[in-house]
Parts: sequence; C-alpha cells; structure tokens
Amino acid sequence: MKRSSLGERSVLLHKKHKGKIEITGKVAIEDREDLSLVYTPGVAEVCHVIANDPKRSRELTSKRNTIAVISDGSAVLGLGNLGALPALPVMEGKAALFKRFANVDAMPIVLDTQNVDEIVAAIKAIAPTFGGINLEDISAPRCFEVEERLRKLLPIPVMHDDQHGTAIVVLAGLLNALRIRGIDKKEAKVIVNGAGAAGVSIVKLLLMEGFRNVVVSDSKGALYTGRTQMESEKEKLAMLTNISCQIDIDDPRCITGGLSTSIRDADVFIGVSKGGVLTKELVRLMHPNPIIFALANPDPEIMPQEALEAGASIVATGRSDFPNQVNNVLAFPGLFRGALDGGIAQFTDAMFLRAAHALAACVKKPGPNNIIPDPFDTCAARAVAQAVKSEKKAKNDIWCTF
Amino acid sequence: MKRSSLGERSVLLHKKHKGKIEITGKVAIEDREDLSLVYTPGVAEVCHVIANDPKRSRELTSKRNTIAVISDGSAVLGLGNLGALPALPVMEGKAALFKRFANVDAMPIVLDTQNVDEIVAAIKAIAPTFGGINLEDISAPRCFEVEERLRKLLPIPVMHDDQHGTAIVVLAGLLNALRIRGIDKKEAKVIVNGAGAAGVSIVKLLLMEGFRNVVVSDSKGALYTGRTQMESEKEKLAMLTNISCQIDIDDPRCITGGLSTSIRDADVFIGVSKGGVLTKELVRLMHPNPIIFALANPDPEIMPQEALEAGASIVATGRSDFPNQVNNVLAFPGLFRGALDGGIAQFTDAMFLRAAHALAACVKKPGPNNIIPDPFDTCAARAVAQAVKSEKKAKNDIWCTF
Repeated sequence: MKRSSLGERSVLLHKKHKGKIEITGKVAIEDREDLSLVYTPGVAEVCHVIANDPKRSRELTSKRNTIAVISDGSAVLGLGNLGALPALPVMEGKAALFKRFANVDAMPIVLDTQNVDEIVAAIKAIAPTFGGINLEDISAPRCFEVEERLRKLLPIPVMHDDQHGTAIVVLAGLLNALRIRGIDKKEAKVIVNGAGAAGVSIVKLLLMEGFRNVVVSDSKGALYTGRTQMESEKEKLAMLTNISCQIDIDDPRCITGGLSTSIRDADVFIGVSKGGVLTKELVRLMHPNPIIFALANPDPEIMPQEALEAGASIVATGRSDFPNQVNNVLAFPGLFRGALDGGIAQFTDAMFLRAAHALAACVKKPGPNNIIPDPFDTCAARAVAQAVKSEKKAKNDIWCTF
Repeated sequence: MKRSSLGERSVLLHKKHKGKIEITGKVAIEDREDLSLVYTPGVAEVCHVIANDPKRSRELTSKRNTIAVISDGSAVLGLGNLGALPALPVMEGKAALFKRFANVDAMPIVLDTQNVDEIVAAIKAIAPTFGGINLEDISAPRCFEVEERLRKLLPIPVMHDDQHGTAIVVLAGLLNALRIRGIDKKEAKVIVNGAGAAGVSIVKLLLMEGFRNVVVSDSKGALYTGRTQMESEKEKLAMLTNISCQIDIDDPRCITGGLSTSIRDADVFIGVSKGGVLTKELVRLMHPNPIIFALANPDPEIMPQEALEAGASIVATGRSDFPNQVNNVLAFPGLFRGALDGGIAQFTDAMFLRAAHALAACVKKPGPNNIIPDPFDTCAARAVAQAVKSEKKAKNDIWCTF
C-alpha cells in the first residue's frame, strides 16, 4: 500500500465524517421533567452542592472523566510548525483514541498562541473544566517550560505525551529487547540520537531505570559537559550522560564527535531524529547484533531490512507496517485512565517507570519481532492504568482535591 | 411536586450518570488500518491539506459543528457568584441541550478567572478549536465588555446567551401577546424591571423592534438621563428610554421614581429582577388587563395566580410548571445551528430580531396560555436557525473564513 494513497484515504475519511469526534449527552431529555432535572431549575441544587463541597464535582460532573488534549501546533507530528488549525486533526484523532482505548473523554483544543506565558495562562484559565491535561505537539525546548510551569500551577495531572508517552513505550520495548539478548541494562551502551522532546524524556527515563552508559547526540554531535551553546535541557543531559567527559575531557572514552564516533561499540541505537541518518556502515560500527530503535516518522533513521542486513538483531520503528511498532497509543490512554481513577495529584517519573515495566510485561513471549504489545492488545491500557494507580499508593501522593 | 425534591432528584441523576456529557469518536477504530487513517501516519496528509488551505478545517475537522459554552461562574443561574466548578453542571446541561435540540457539539468550559482581560485572552487562545462561542452566566456589566471585545477579536460568532437568548424569547412571546390583545408595539408602554445582562439586552431588542415607550428600572428606581452613578450600559439605556426625560426632566411624563411610579398605566411588565417584587397592588396600577412577564427564577416577581387575580390578561414566567415558559432553549440551539451552517462571521441584532419573529410564528394559534412554543416544539430550533441563515444572506455578511 503506497503512503500517498493512505493519506488520500485519510482525507476522504475525514471529509465523510466531518471530523472525528462528537460531544453527546448521557442523559435522556424527552419531556419537561427531564429538562428540569438536566438544566434549570433542578440543576441549581447540583450547583449548590458543589459550591459547598468542590470535591463533589468529581461525582456530579463529567470533569472526573474528561481531559484536554492541547497543542499550539508548533511541532505537528514530524511536520514542523504548522500552527493551530492544521494540528486539530491530530488532536481529534488522539481524542478518539482516548475514548476507544480507555473510555477517557478527551477534548481536542488548539491554541492561537505559541508564547509560553500565554499558553500557560490559557491552560490555567480553562483547567477547572478538566481532570487532566495532555500536552501535545509542542516544540522543544518550549514544551519543557510549559509542562513544568503547569505542573506547579495546577491541581490536576499534566503530561506532555511527546515526551513521556514515547519514553515509556521505548523503555518497555528496550527492556524486552535486552532480556532477549541477555544484556544487563547497567552494562549496555546506548546511543540516543536526537535531543528534542522525545530524546530528552527517553534519556531521563533510561537513567532513572538504572542505565549507566548513555550518550546523547544531536545534529552537532555528542552532548558533553563543556560543549558550548547548549540550551538548559541539553546542559542537564550533558551532565548526566557521556560521563567519562565529567572526569576528564581528554579521557579517550569521552565522546565529543559525531555519530560515527559515538556509535562505536554501542549495544543500542535509539533514533528520535530524522529519516535516513543511520547508514548500514554506521550499524556495522556498533557492537555485534545491535538493537535498533529507528523512530523517526514517517521515514525511520534506517529501514528495518537494511538494519537487519547490517547485522541488527532487533529493530523497532514508529510504523504500523513493520514489527515492533513504538506507538504512544500503548501508553497515553492508560496513563490518564489511571490518573483519573486514582485521583492522582500529579504524574511522577516513578509512575512512568512502573508503567514501562507493566507494558513490557504485557508481552508474554518476547521475541525479536515481538518486544512491544500490539496497539489493540487490551492489556496495555489496563496495565499502564494499574501501574499509575499502584505507584500513587506506593508513594502516598496527595489526592487530587480538584 | 416540591422544589426541594426536584433538586434532590437532579443530584441523584447527576450522580448516577457521573455528569451529563461525553466525548466520543465518530469513526470506527478496529484494526491497524483504521488506526493509521484516524491518527498517524495517514492524518499527516489532512494536516498538510489544512495548512495549505485553512478553510478546509471546516470540512475535515469537527470544528465546523463544535462550539464552546464558557462561564466564569460569576452569575450562576440566579444563584450569584459561585465560581467555576459550581457552574460546570449548568454548562454541561446546556451542552446536552445543544446536542439534543440542534445537533450542535458543545464543549462546557469553566474558567478559573473573573478578570475581563484574562477571560478574553483565554477565550481568544482556545478559539481556533471552535466554530462559535456561547458565553454563559457571566455577571453584568463585565459580560458586556467580554462579549464586545471577543466579537471584535474573533473570526467566529460570539454570543452571551443570558442577554440575547433571553431577549429573543421574550420578544417572541411579547409579539404574540400584543397580537392577542390588539395592542400596537409603537403605542405599548413597557416597564422592564431589572437592568442586568437580560434586562439590557431585552430593552435593546425592543427598541430595535420599534417599541417607543419603554422605561427601565433597577433597584434604585427608573433609569433616566441625568441620574447619577450609573455604569456605562445603564447610561446608554437611559438615553434611549424614558424619553420624556430627554427633553425636560420636569416633564410630568419623565419618570424618576420607583416601580410604583413607573408602572402606572403600563401595558406590559417584564421582570428580570427578583422574586416577589411585583405585588397585586402594583399590578392594579397598570393599564387594565396588563401583560406580565415575571421571569425571575426560581421565584417569579409575582406568581401567575396572583397576577391573574389582580387583573393580568396574560402571564409568562421562566418556570416549566406554568403556561408560557420563557426558556432560552427555544433560542440558543437554533442560533448556533444557523450560525454554523451559514458560516456567519458574527451574530447581528438583525438576526436576533428575525429569530424572535420566526419563533413567534411557530405558535400557530396564539392564546393567553399559548404565546410561546413548547420547549420540545421542533419548529423552534429550525425556525431560529433559518432566520439566522436568511439574515446573513440579506445583509451580505462576510463569510467566516476560519
């Protein structure tokens, strides 16, 4: 099936249905009695009850099960800064998946501003409506500040899915891949190519999981302490990765060059960068039988067939037409299902780690072409939701008071 | 049926259904093919199409049929400034009615700010998501500024329903009542008691319709040119009503006193004020067989039975348990249905006038107990929508470009 025809069919599908979501009532309104219960005058009593005890909005309104999926359109899929309206079909799609996979009511919202202060102010203003906020397709490094500020400001869980959803699914797949190959995470040399929203979040989660030998590279080469002109998030990563450089920048193990230097002897390549940047020659520089996650969309860093020909043992991509698809839909529905049901105050990294392990465990018999659950495996959302809820209990987080 | 028991049953209904609305997908997602059409990679083509021609968001997304119902919780029903969360059940109810009566997808949104600048900024920021904005339960006089500024800022129709929805239904009922009584609108003396959001908008619409003898009174008595300490909207009304005062404040026809002065010889009383303020004695001061709209909720300015005993010929209230219920649900669904289908750039007063006439005409055989359509009369939404669309054509408004 050609990609162009897939796109054309998608346009036709959108046209036929006039968008992908609708907002419907859950209560029958067939006579004056119904009307007076759903709306005035009966609803006045519901307003009074909530005014006296705001927490009861959780049982008496749809807030309990409703989140917003919000984008400023600055990084729409891999297409770049298209702005608000072109981002709307993605947000609607995500809302449809939230309902389909976890019965979460999700409202797509696109913003006509890309100013961080204005984004934060607008989301803060509408937040009482929702039980959680899923940030989406906001470009790095602005996405880090938006998420961090909203997490401090709001009493509801906030998550930028391009960061954490991706990181969780990558870690889940990597845990299974390492198990198949018999590699210890503490010994594995991992190259993360790309230091945008996804790259930063993947590296953080790997480090928290206990990976020790991680090198991050961007378009200018490896990140290392002392490299100039790095923005704040990259500086943080440089302090936590490529650690030989911390002790002595002249240490031969300190990597300061490009991918052809950093990739030598690596057990794992994780690409969240651009199509085609990983050549067969580069794969041959890696440790024998390496694990390759080529996640650039729609064109991966290397096509699976080429990677296998160059010696890779396990290959994952972001695409549905190859095995081992790293698809955020395995994580985001369950994350918010668990957050809403558990009434958590905020997502924590510990929840994300637990979610990755739960997701990995959904694969009963891992194999080179089976390291990640299928998107339609109902285990995924259930296991991730349970992980979020259990972690909340484990950590004694404060319950959301709405 | 006791009112307390209605409220209790409403609370139980809300608890049973956990709120009143849900957000559902319109497209089946049953296999990987579906997934790749609804979401990545297929959706990328839809993003491209909209990026190249933003107007196509109207055919390819749900924006075309989706509005926001937004409140800051500053004037929740007649209950006062309860804040965001207690307003949510009202907004959800309204959203359910939008879907039920006009198939409009409406998203309830409550704001955590009551600052005019912040409200305007937040709504402007989220506006690209929507095909229209229904402002709701925002207190006067802030509601006037919020609406006016948003109408100038946004390329989509904006309407504060507490103003215009109410005014349209009142005018529709009044047109039928005057016809029954054989009174000419140009001769009718009308007292509007209450100068909040609804009062202001009713008076404006009456004047545009051609009523000439209108007097507005608030808690301090009649509005007249020269009365001190009036905010901007009331000053405007004072210049357009109680017109004898414009020429000479000592003219005996210039009314500067309270209701017991202004109501003398009036043909029509329209109360959008407080329960119980209209006594039988006051009704007896009016022109014989007066028309009474006692719209305060839940307790009308006078109970219908008392008004009739004091000589009233036709009585309307806001309540579903008496004849002639002035219910906004007769107007708002059709207004937005027409606006969305017609792709109008902005609501105009001419549309509201035309909508009121269309609504009045839905009553085939007007009588003292039948001046307004029943809320379930399907003529209402259809006629109002058609009125909005035809008025657009009549005026050659600019089509909404989204």
